[in-house]
Amino acid sequence: MEPQFVSFAHLDSFPLTDGASAKALFGEGAMLNLVELEPGAVVARHSHPHEQLGLILRGSMNLEVDGADHMLEEMDAYALPGDVEHQGTAGPQGALVLDVFRPVREDYREAAAG
Amino acid sequence: MEPQFVSFAHLDSFPLTDGASAKALFGEGAMLNLVELEPGAVVARHSHPHEQLGLILRGSMNLEVDGADHMLEEMDAYALPGDVEHQGTAGPQGALVLDVFRPVREDYREAAAG
Repeated sequence: MEPQFVSFAHLDSFPLTDGASAKALFGEGAMLNLVELEPGAVVARHSHPHEQLGLILRGSMNLEVDGADHMLEEMDAYALPGDVEHQGTAGPQGALVLDVFRPVREDYREAAAG
Repeated sequence: MEPQFVSFAHLDSFPLTDGASAKALFGEGAMLNLVELEPGAVVARHSHPHEQLGLILRGSMNLEVDGADHMLEEMDAYALPGDVEHQGTAGPQGALVLDVFRPVREDYREAAAG
């Protein structure tokens, strides 16, 4: 794989769910996923084998993990091992979140390709 | 590894080089590294076997990769395979950069532990 340089400001977004869209940069074994959540948007409870790390860049999000709520504000971060059930709910101002997945989520690669 | 939740606002930073410090969150096979660069700070040319992805959160940085300059502004991102030579130079307002390394950089784990 060659070095890649992209501007997230100019990347096309793809829908994740109602009120949530994403823009992605795919590396070899990890990816960046910039997620924009409208106020109150819910990414329903789910899990995946991929490790996930993330950082709240703007706004707030409640991240429910294994049934416990974690209210996250700007510059709060998390690291979730694979196969952990989680649900994200954006706060009243919405949220901009940078997620990292390891390995690359091939379902997102397909979604980003349209 | 258990799920982790941290506030980068409250994490201790560790020095990277003159004018550059970082705060890290270590996952299983990847890590977040939030790098604060003073205006003009240089992270000298280097390489590592780890894949690196990153996003400019504030300010600007010239990322020289394999001898070519890439002037990166806010919300510009990059993905560098392992073992690629690169050098970062912060712009006149400095830069706040979120880097991702895969796998975890054990040298940074030691640096963060003090």
